[in-house]
Amino acid sequence: MQNEQTIQPKISVGISNKHVHISKEDLEILFGEGYELTKKVDLVQPGQFASNETITIRGPKGEFENVRILGPVRKESQVEISLTDSFRLGVKAPIKESGDLEVTPGLELVGPNGTVNLEKGTIVALRHIHMSPKQAEVFGVKDKEIVEVETFGERKVILGNVLVRVSEQFELEMHLDTDEANACALKNKDYVVLRKSNN
Amino acid sequence: MQNEQTIQPKISVGISNKHVHISKEDLEILFGEGYELTKKVDLVQPGQFASNETITIRGPKGEFENVRILGPVRKESQVEISLTDSFRLGVKAPIKESGDLEVTPGLELVGPNGTVNLEKGTIVALRHIHMSPKQAEVFGVKDKEIVEVETFGERKVILGNVLVRVSEQFELEMHLDTDEANACALKNKDYVVLRKSNN
Repeated sequence: MQNEQTIQPKISVGISNKHVHISKEDLEILFGEGYELTKKVDLVQPGQFASNETITIRGPKGEFENVRILGPVRKESQVEISLTDSFRLGVKAPIKESGDLEVTPGLELVGPNGTVNLEKGTIVALRHIHMSPKQAEVFGVKDKEIVEVETFGERKVILGNVLVRVSEQFELEMHLDTDEANACALKNKDYVVLRKSNN
Repeated sequence: MQNEQTIQPKISVGISNKHVHISKEDLEILFGEGYELTKKVDLVQPGQFASNETITIRGPKGEFENVRILGPVRKESQVEISLTDSFRLGVKAPIKESGDLEVTPGLELVGPNGTVNLEKGTIVALRHIHMSPKQAEVFGVKDKEIVEVETFGERKVILGNVLVRVSEQFELEMHLDTDEANACALKNKDYVVLRKSNN
């Protein structure tokens, strides 16, 4: 069983620091009418980029400055933080799939031109693997499937409850937040291996 | 195998936030001649306590105020931080067993009476389970043995490279740092289960 697993393709890790996805409407409140995000660097996922724009996110207990906005703009604004961040901000952010913003707390977003009081949209992202339909075929998994992932090194772990996300828009990559990456002593571009879940 | 494991006694989790163990000599520099730690609350490990005393720890890139000293005093001062903390402080703290301070970076310790420039002693504690010799017998493990630990809940994982520490002075408890606890979504007093390691 162990051998069967380890011949699977390696999956590269991308570590998500706290970041914001922003709606066009909120972007204009924060940066001014007609403002558009400018690209700093492309991300691994096709079409996605880190922008040059950063804002302050403020909770009841604390705030973080210089939090990067990832582009392009989305339908709804969304703040992704780690559990460690959530304690400093003083918000009870649930662990959720990106885009699932029902019953999530808000935060104050502060930009150079104005402030947005988000009513909802703060989540701790559920750890997940992006892959294309072809890559999913190689792994023998489907969109939304829950799998396990094995990591290596001095803090090696087997992560349970890992969500598989399949789309033509995706490139093979596992996303972890900074708590998870540090708990596993993983760096960007380290690799992990997918295992089928037992339950 | 799964069934065999889950009948083992549950182990309670204790989450270690960043903290300092202090030598008598350094305590007197920080708080004044003849100063002694005062107890705030007993810890689970017999004889160990959180003191009322806190200090600032300062690295090349940042600092943390109000870092608690755990008592009683030790032979050598030691600062235990998470990897997340290490990035903010700007120190390359290795993952090590408590007390193993060879080839570890120092930090500046700032107290109300003075400053100590620690030359070494900053570590990220290797995750570990404390237990008495009797408890070790029940688990069928020995001091220094490396085991795996299973956690439960929405961020369940199997942690590899967990150190077993056996002593008459110890009470059964697993110590994780805040990165590990948050990556596993564990709180103090949550339980985990020991598994024998495969390698």
